[in-house]
Amino acid sequence: MVIDIFRASTAICAALDYGVEAIIPVKTVQQALAYKAQGYLAAAERGGEIVKGFDLGNSPLMFRQAHLRNQTIVLTTSNCTRALLKATQAKERIMGSFINQEALIRHLEKGHQDTILLCAGWKNKFNLEDTLFAGSLVHRLKDEFYMEHCDSAIAAEQLYLHSKADLYGALLKSSHAYRLRHLDLEKDIRYCLTPDQTEVVPVFLDGKIVVA
Amino acid sequence: MVIDIFRASTAICAALDYGVEAIIPVKTVQQALAYKAQGYLAAAERGGEIVKGFDLGNSPLMFRQAHLRNQTIVLTTSNCTRALLKATQAKERIMGSFINQEALIRHLEKGHQDTILLCAGWKNKFNLEDTLFAGSLVHRLKDEFYMEHCDSAIAAEQLYLHSKADLYGALLKSSHAYRLRHLDLEKDIRYCLTPDQTEVVPVFLDGKIVVA
Repeated sequence: MVIDIFRASTAICAALDYGVEAIIPVKTVQQALAYKAQGYLAAAERGGEIVKGFDLGNSPLMFRQAHLRNQTIVLTTSNCTRALLKATQAKERIMGSFINQEALIRHLEKGHQDTILLCAGWKNKFNLEDTLFAGSLVHRLKDEFYMEHCDSAIAAEQLYLHSKADLYGALLKSSHAYRLRHLDLEKDIRYCLTPDQTEVVPVFLDGKIVVA
Repeated sequence: MVIDIFRASTAICAALDYGVEAIIPVKTVQQALAYKAQGYLAAAERGGEIVKGFDLGNSPLMFRQAHLRNQTIVLTTSNCTRALLKATQAKERIMGSFINQEALIRHLEKGHQDTILLCAGWKNKFNLEDTLFAGSLVHRLKDEFYMEHCDSAIAAEQLYLHSKADLYGALLKSSHAYRLRHLDLEKDIRYCLTPDQTEVVPVFLDGKIVVA
């Protein structure tokens, strides 16, 4: 499961929930531009902002526009699409976010496969929001899954338990919320932290992210 | 600052405090064996255990033996010596542990340089004990140092604050404590978690770790 709470994995869940048909994740802005030149709708984000020449970045709310329904959108982001494309050995690749949390939990319980919670982070660094979400899943699923003696899972769960009463407040201190606040995206942050707004479980199949 | 609480950075502090003159960190067991063949005292640890053919591993208590006073000891460990030897760009490389915590804080306050707390971890993975110690330093020093918007520092401090009342209890759940308990090293664990047993600040100079 690839997790990029602020904001790409949330945006993908939001888009598929709204009726976008598929997302094609690509690594580079150049690849996204090449698709765009072929007539595809394309979204590109770097450093939290929409890349020049594109109409969409990784804001989940921006993906919920009527003209995007039933469309396929090409997407490149700083962290999420890279993480997704790196996880080549997984039997199944799904996207995790607070907005589809319960649906994910049911999906994992049903499949009951070995699961890695792959936090996309920020430019190859640890980040708090992805870790808090991973911690919430560890907390919910640890009694049903065998958990390796894994300190990162233990720490993520502890951080989540100490923050769950006020995730927004806890994340105000985080580096990413700081960057997003700077970009005036409070509405996006609150959307990304509101659990269970959709039942979709996005899965990466044959180069496209679609509803499982 | 290189941090490897269980147990190498603690062992180095304990050894220098006891009167060992210097520690020569080396990367591989082969290098340690080569020194040994030249007549050096040598210590080697892999997977938490003393490597076959050596009398010392990385137990701090084992370094406090009368015949080691005023001696130079060659040391290779799974994580700590590797981290130390990787940090080649630092102006100064010091060793951090709970047992010399206050001395470290004074050292950092006095020098007031940009500081990276390099948690050695376990086989390139995150671990809890090094993070808790880093969090304790963040907590003590954050008002005196400018702190980059760094989620790992924020999370480390939070984990420390929630665990400080009972570090031993918090770490019983950790992967490394599990491994060490398995090896019957509870005395070592308690020693490694007892703050301020020494004033030494080990520093890496010209290939040797000595008292600053």
